[in-house]
Amino acid sequence: MMAFSSEFQTELLDLMRWRRDVRRFRSDPVDDALLRDCLEAMRLAPSVGLSEPWRVISVQSETARDAMLANFQAENADALADYDGERAETYAGLKLSGMREAPVQLAVFCDEDTSKGGGLGVRTMTEMRRYSVVTAIMNLWLFARARGLGVGWVSILDAEQAKRDLDAPDGWALVAYLCVGWPEETHTDPELQRAGWEQRSDALEVEVR
Amino acid sequence: MMAFSSEFQTELLDLMRWRRDVRRFRSDPVDDALLRDCLEAMRLAPSVGLSEPWRVISVQSETARDAMLANFQAENADALADYDGERAETYAGLKLSGMREAPVQLAVFCDEDTSKGGGLGVRTMTEMRRYSVVTAIMNLWLFARARGLGVGWVSILDAEQAKRDLDAPDGWALVAYLCVGWPEETHTDPELQRAGWEQRSDALEVEVR
Repeated sequence: MMAFSSEFQTELLDLMRWRRDVRRFRSDPVDDALLRDCLEAMRLAPSVGLSEPWRVISVQSETARDAMLANFQAENADALADYDGERAETYAGLKLSGMREAPVQLAVFCDEDTSKGGGLGVRTMTEMRRYSVVTAIMNLWLFARARGLGVGWVSILDAEQAKRDLDAPDGWALVAYLCVGWPEETHTDPELQRAGWEQRSDALEVEVR
Repeated sequence: MMAFSSEFQTELLDLMRWRRDVRRFRSDPVDDALLRDCLEAMRLAPSVGLSEPWRVISVQSETARDAMLANFQAENADALADYDGERAETYAGLKLSGMREAPVQLAVFCDEDTSKGGGLGVRTMTEMRRYSVVTAIMNLWLFARARGLGVGWVSILDAEQAKRDLDAPDGWALVAYLCVGWPEETHTDPELQRAGWEQRSDALEVEVR
C-alpha cells in the first residue's frame, strides 16, 4: 500500500491553502513542457464510468482571444447592471479575469455525447460527466500551483456564444474558461475577501441524519 | 511566495495516481478527528463569488442508510436493465458502491439558494455553484487518500428521493453520495478497468484555436 508521510500531508494542506483563483498574471510565457505536465494531471482525475469526458481547447489566436474577451466584457457589464449603490461600486472595482494578460488560456469542455463509459453512472444524474471534468480541473489547478503557476476560472461568459466562437463540437458543454500563468502575487486569502465582496466562513456545518 | 519542492510535486502526482474510487472497505471505524480534518479540506476549495455553497449531511442512522441503499439498489437494477448480453453480464458483476460496508457516508449538497457570494459568477453559468461543491469534494478526496482513507462516489441514485429520505432543505441539490473508510486494497488502475468495463485513454487531446 502506497502511504504518504505526515510531512506530505501537511504540505498538501499548505498547497490547498495557497491555491487561489488568480486574475493578476505576469505576461512572461509558460513553458510548453510545464503546461503539458499540468494537463496530464487532468488524466489522473476520477471520471464517471471511466468516461474521461474532458476536452480542452487551447485558445491562442488573436481572433479567438478577442472573441472570448468580448464575451466576458458583455456579460460582466450585464452583471454589473444587476447591482445597485455600494454593491455596484464594489463590483465595478473587482478584477474578475486575467484574460488580457494570461499567456495560456484553456477552454475546458465536457463531451456529453461520448460513448466512453457506456453510460455507467449517468442514467439518473446526467450532470456526472460535467462533475468529472471539474475534478480534472481541480487536479490541474493543484498541480499547477505546486509548480508555481496560477490558475483563474472565468465563468462570466455566455457559454453558447463561446462554443460558437471556438467552433466547438455540438455535443460539448463549456465547463470552464481557465487563465493560466505566473501570478503577480500569492496569498492565502481570496481576492474577493481582500476586496470586501464576501467573507470566508469560519466553519463547515455538518448535519446528521 | 510559498514554493513547493520538486519532491513534493512528484509525491503530489503519486497521490493523484493512487487516488481511486473505492468500493471495497474494511468495516473498522474512522476516527472523528481524522474525518473532521478531511471535511476541513473542503473549506480550502475555490467557490464562485466566495459563495461556499457546500453542505454536508452525515448519514448515520440505520433508517437513513437503509433508505439510501434501497435507492441505490432500485436505480442500479433499472440501469442493468438497459444493457444486453455480455455488457449486461459485465455490469451485473461490477461492485458499484461500498454502501453496505463503508463506516462513513456523506451526502454532499449544493445550496442553490444561498445569498452568499451575492450572485457573482453564476448569472450566466448557474451550474457554477455545483461545480464549486465538486472542487471541495476533490480536496476532501485527495486529502483523505493522503491520510490513507478511501473515498467512493455513488451517483446511481434518484437525487430527489435522496433529498426526501434525508430531509434536506428544498434549495439543496444532491451533488454526491460519498462512502469513506479504510480501503481493503489499493491500486493505481481504476476498478472499472480491472473489471473489463472500460479502458483508460493513452493521452489527452488538446485542440488549438
